[in-house]
Amino acid sequence: MSHNTFGHLFRVTTWGESHGAALGCIVDGCPPGIRFTRQDIQAELDRRRPGQSRFVTQRREPDEIKVLSGFLLDEQDGETMVTTGTPIAMMIENVDQRSKDYGEIARQYRPGHADYTYDVKYGLRDYRGGGRSSARETAARVAAGAIARKVVPGLTVRGALISVGEKAIDRGRWNWNFVDDPENPFFTPDPGSVPVFTEYLDRVRKAGSSVGAVVEVVAEGVPAGLGAPVYAKLDQDIASGLMSINAVKGVEIGNGFEAARITGEENADEMRMGNDGEPVFLSNHAGGILGGISTGQPVVARFAVKPTSSILTPRRSIDKDGNDVEVRTKGRHDPCVGIRAVPIGEAMVACVIADHYLRHRGQTGKG
Amino acid sequence: MSHNTFGHLFRVTTWGESHGAALGCIVDGCPPGIRFTRQDIQAELDRRRPGQSRFVTQRREPDEIKVLSGFLLDEQDGETMVTTGTPIAMMIENVDQRSKDYGEIARQYRPGHADYTYDVKYGLRDYRGGGRSSARETAARVAAGAIARKVVPGLTVRGALISVGEKAIDRGRWNWNFVDDPENPFFTPDPGSVPVFTEYLDRVRKAGSSVGAVVEVVAEGVPAGLGAPVYAKLDQDIASGLMSINAVKGVEIGNGFEAARITGEENADEMRMGNDGEPVFLSNHAGGILGGISTGQPVVARFAVKPTSSILTPRRSIDKDGNDVEVRTKGRHDPCVGIRAVPIGEAMVACVIADHYLRHRGQTGKG
Amino acid sequence: MSHNTFGHLFRVTTWGESHGAALGCIVDGCPPGIRFTRQDIQAELDRRRPGQSRFVTQRREPDEIKVLSGFLLDEQDGETMVTTGTPIAMMIENVDQRSKDYGEIARQYRPGHADYTYDVKYGLRDYRGGGRSSARETAARVAAGAIARKVVPGLTVRGALISVGEKAIDRGRWNWNFVDDPENPFFTPDPGSVPVFTEYLDRVRKAGSSVGAVVEVVAEGVPAGLGAPVYAKLDQDIASGLMSINAVKGVEIGNGFEAARITGEENADEMRMGNDGEPVFLSNHAGGILGGISTGQPVVARFAVKPTSSILTPRRSIDKDGNDVEVRTKGRHDPCVGIRAVPIGEAMVACVIADHYLRHRGQTGKG
Amino acid sequence: MSHNTFGHLFRVTTWGESHGAALGCIVDGCPPGIRFTRQDIQAELDRRRPGQSRFVTQRREPDEIKVLSGFLLDEQDGETMVTTGTPIAMMIENVDQRSKDYGEIARQYRPGHADYTYDVKYGLRDYRGGGRSSARETAARVAAGAIARKVVPGLTVRGALISVGEKAIDRGRWNWNFVDDPENPFFTPDPGSVPVFTEYLDRVRKAGSSVGAVVEVVAEGVPAGLGAPVYAKLDQDIASGLMSINAVKGVEIGNGFEAARITGEENADEMRMGNDGEPVFLSNHAGGILGGISTGQPVVARFAVKPTSSILTPRRSIDKDGNDVEVRTKGRHDPCVGIRAVPIGEAMVACVIADHYLRHRGQTGKG
Repeated sequence: MSHNTFGHLFRVTTWGESHGAALGCIVDGCPPGIRFTRQDIQAELDRRRPGQSRFVTQRREPDEIKVLSGFLLDEQDGETMVTTGTPIAMMIENVDQRSKDYGEIARQYRPGHADYTYDVKYGLRDYRGGGRSSARETAARVAAGAIARKVVPGLTVRGALISVGEKAIDRGRWNWNFVDDPENPFFTPDPGSVPVFTEYLDRVRKAGSSVGAVVEVVAEGVPAGLGAPVYAKLDQDIASGLMSINAVKGVEIGNGFEAARITGEENADEMRMGNDGEPVFLSNHAGGILGGISTGQPVVARFAVKPTSSILTPRRSIDKDGNDVEVRTKGRHDPCVGIRAVPIGEAMVACVIADHYLRHRGQTGKG
Repeated sequence: MSHNTFGHLFRVTTWGESHGAALGCIVDGCPPGIRFTRQDIQAELDRRRPGQSRFVTQRREPDEIKVLSGFLLDEQDGETMVTTGTPIAMMIENVDQRSKDYGEIARQYRPGHADYTYDVKYGLRDYRGGGRSSARETAARVAAGAIARKVVPGLTVRGALISVGEKAIDRGRWNWNFVDDPENPFFTPDPGSVPVFTEYLDRVRKAGSSVGAVVEVVAEGVPAGLGAPVYAKLDQDIASGLMSINAVKGVEIGNGFEAARITGEENADEMRMGNDGEPVFLSNHAGGILGGISTGQPVVARFAVKPTSSILTPRRSIDKDGNDVEVRTKGRHDPCVGIRAVPIGEAMVACVIADHYLRHRGQTGKG
Repeated sequence: MSHNTFGHLFRVTTWGESHGAALGCIVDGCPPGIRFTRQDIQAELDRRRPGQSRFVTQRREPDEIKVLSGFLLDEQDGETMVTTGTPIAMMIENVDQRSKDYGEIARQYRPGHADYTYDVKYGLRDYRGGGRSSARETAARVAAGAIARKVVPGLTVRGALISVGEKAIDRGRWNWNFVDDPENPFFTPDPGSVPVFTEYLDRVRKAGSSVGAVVEVVAEGVPAGLGAPVYAKLDQDIASGLMSINAVKGVEIGNGFEAARITGEENADEMRMGNDGEPVFLSNHAGGILGGISTGQPVVARFAVKPTSSILTPRRSIDKDGNDVEVRTKGRHDPCVGIRAVPIGEAMVACVIADHYLRHRGQTGKG
Repeated sequence: MSHNTFGHLFRVTTWGESHGAALGCIVDGCPPGIRFTRQDIQAELDRRRPGQSRFVTQRREPDEIKVLSGFLLDEQDGETMVTTGTPIAMMIENVDQRSKDYGEIARQYRPGHADYTYDVKYGLRDYRGGGRSSARETAARVAAGAIARKVVPGLTVRGALISVGEKAIDRGRWNWNFVDDPENPFFTPDPGSVPVFTEYLDRVRKAGSSVGAVVEVVAEGVPAGLGAPVYAKLDQDIASGLMSINAVKGVEIGNGFEAARITGEENADEMRMGNDGEPVFLSNHAGGILGGISTGQPVVARFAVKPTSSILTPRRSIDKDGNDVEVRTKGRHDPCVGIRAVPIGEAMVACVIADHYLRHRGQTGKG
């Protein structure tokens, strides 16, 4: 990964700022003949879109995707896009910019934000909504991920919110079908967590505060053999992809940090031959990856999202001129940015798997 | 990162198997005029070397480094190597191979190892000591890291073991000087942890079992401004580098997963102007990185190492022919591979920082 | 270079087809603080634009550039764009598509075109105007090159047409000022060549035929030290960049193929210390590059463009169904695509030099 | 290509100087299961080896290759190496270094050499035999190429010397079998050229002079569909690979610069359906590549090698201290380095094709 591009054969480049004219991405290296509709992509974007509940930022952005290149329309239905193997450019125009909101913090460094580091690095920064470091950039990832999902036959990538601040789900009540239920504002897989999270986040929001969250992403249908033993480990590239999401401070694969606390006997995933003559793993502590290479089990990753740094409570900071100041971030912000990170995490995992699928096919001829 | 190379301007490529003739690395893109001695590198390798205590594998490898290219000898002292800007090739010969040890598991898939995934991916595998997935590969990283440490003026990268299985250090007793004390077989920064870890690991070793560990790496002297806001985040590349180490299952930056549990007020690192006219952060929850870019504070990363999968307790598995088998791994193995991961983690962090230092200088002219 | 991206630190990714909605590019890694106007870019595009004389394709495209991201407007003049160090996205909408022109060749493989190879590679192709292989893609290069020119202080990159088919300029009459003269439809530096080329190309055009051309690009103000001795030679990357332009079949640096015919004495560029204490080369057979590294002299490259394959004269070919056919390409085509290749060649050379400038600064701290 | 690595999926990294301990390469990304012997590689190196006739440098280097990693020995014959998919490290020790030969030019900049540019770029240089810019580096390419040849089923890559200074072969007498004939010191395909070249080069050598040469490389058995339409054109990557060879100043594909002189009718390669139901091209002006993608015809490339700059005739230059000097290069040098460039050119073309073969398979699943 470098600059604003990630991936080797399936490559994604994103561009655009919070308050510029538009943002977008180029998906390069997509195999030819992949079929998708604009609606396939829009549906993923709608899941990430702000303004859908009181727990996420109230910025109103339709996030309408335009697909500008890289496809031929199916002549039969006039709607299905068929990839040609050339770069797929997608664009989303910024509509609700309200840049005046940000006026007063143009010279202040908000604690926890990239304001100070930008100024140190570049000598200037786009203070409007965080510029390039805005979470709006992640819309482009979600669009790319919608294509990636189509690249690997049989692949399903789903994510869920498993904790918010001090509150966690009950994994015993895990129900994938509930995650995208219209009654579920949290992408939680546990219906019982909704009232708990609601009460908790209402309190946080009213206090002008924010909390973090943990998201789990599970990829099923990942063929065994993706990845490589050293610097192209599948888990390494997933970690890289998830850590590249704004506000992510930790990533783990399978049982993750728990693996450091248990014994080798407890951690081993034993195997037996199944009745169908295929190997069967009796557990999945490894999260579907051994030695950097997928086992064919579900790939499981989790990531921790810090609380948004835009809070109403004043915090001490400095400004561009070297004055001590108090910073209080008004405007439209998520009390828990982790919620909307669910489709973003899915998209990153899907893109990494698609890339490794093509790389594996390249090196070995398999797949 | 791709295949067996990582980095963009400071690039490291490693090669070699556990039971081949040798292993090594190429450090490409090192600036000219960097001065080092063979002993600078050997000293780092000696810290990682097996066979130094009963808690690490008893394989006897001198791990003697040869520097084959990329330098001119200083004409004054005839010993100091001065980099020329061309690739630095380094090599370590394998000495103590005892490949017969591995004979009986040539056709079995050891649970938790890469045996099964290798066969699925490549259709064949080097069963002698894990082949390319052996931890011996990490010696090459340590050698590369020894060069990387010289590239960034004023950089210090240190690591420490902070927990072993269920046992953790007391951070209140943290003492960097103790980490490399000859009386310290664990790289622990807490002298009080030595008897606790000793007793615990003796028990694990005698039980033929193994445990995991958590390692913390701290880089001081990292200039502010390294990294980039989207897909070249400094924390992302550190996560990628640490997750590429064998047996690592989780990575976190700063307060990491803890950040997901606290509020925005608690998590914010406030700032004030210092007496010397330089900005001062009042805390470092962020681990020295905001928005993917270094703040100038110490960069703090932690990673979780799973228990080694080579244990004496029999585990159920299958073999290459599809038979159910019981696997019991004899031979020389670490009861806790996490201990020796300390210098490896340091090396990866040093290499990533060196790469970003050069990239930052390239794009901005600073540094 | 890979897929649709080239460069390492200064990276250009292009997208778009001849008959899609738009085409564009992302310039990633541009240093912050570079100042340019939309008109700086538009002016370069206008030089490449079709429809300006009867010797180039009559397709009418305004080629109006939109700059979508990566800049802040200068608050003083409200017009100058100041780069922020983030990706610069630029877009050109396709206006004059007339896709019906191409209807009859949708199933035929035009000799000399990429029609057959596309179908073999991708299993499908965008037959409308050549799809991704259309020369319209080069507009995106020219836009990127306009930014690249600003990155290296003091850099000037100029190109000129030095031969058309059997007709060549007289180098003794070389006049850079004439190249962009409104009376010069050819980018020739030799005023005397205009009537010769005019008469010749009129004859070619009326015959429904086409001819090739040779273009020379000269970069002045290239600092000494750019490039690297082995696989990042400056001349190698220039060759790669020029050969990536549609229809280019040969590239040479300095005296090029002539170097293979002369002796070492004749070819050597001798040096003397100049009166100002700076080294002076007494000739420039090397084209400003020795051992892959720039000398500080002008960098000189030439490339050969084949005659466009779209001609009125019928040629034998086959179609997608395996039938023998006669192909005669009607529509709007250049009798000599080499003419419009001049600004494209300049753009590629500028981008390669900008990339090496940043890489050199990264590795060595110089520049 | 970057630094000292080229290729994307089939990646080659080389290291080593003329007068260091050794030189070598890493071939990374080679598919598993490829079978070769050490002798397959040695045979290619022997073709490139110096000291084989009076027309090439008299430095005596056995150039004995060691294969250090990336293979398992075939258990049947104990000799055939079978690739495992992990990096193949190869090394050649430098034996005949005689570094005293170079003593007197340690501070002088030899015209036509990289001496001056190295000092400007790096601030220091390895003056012993050119250091990293020595043609000895190309031995590593030849070793890598020997592996690449095995990667693409049915691929044959052959090269030939087609001109030396002012003397050219008669293409009508082209005989591939003669190229490697023991009686042929020139890799010429024209037996009639041997006395002509001999007489000519003897004269050049006795005069203490040198001349350039042109080499042609032809790859047969290249599957149709390799390459990509924009910045991964097969011809572009071949041009890049050939231009990265020391002393190369020009590259052309197919009819190359000649294409710029002829008409579209003359240049078009017409097609017909063959009796076997496969498309047949009636000519190959394109050199087997259309729109950057291979047609299935032989891929034909040519490159121009300048005369070696190490000549006995004194040339004017300067030294490191800014003094005007006369340089006369004694020592062991080729009167025509182009001769030994034949196997090097073959190796580069083979590596590029192998890389594109894997990339094509990755993106499209074909091959």
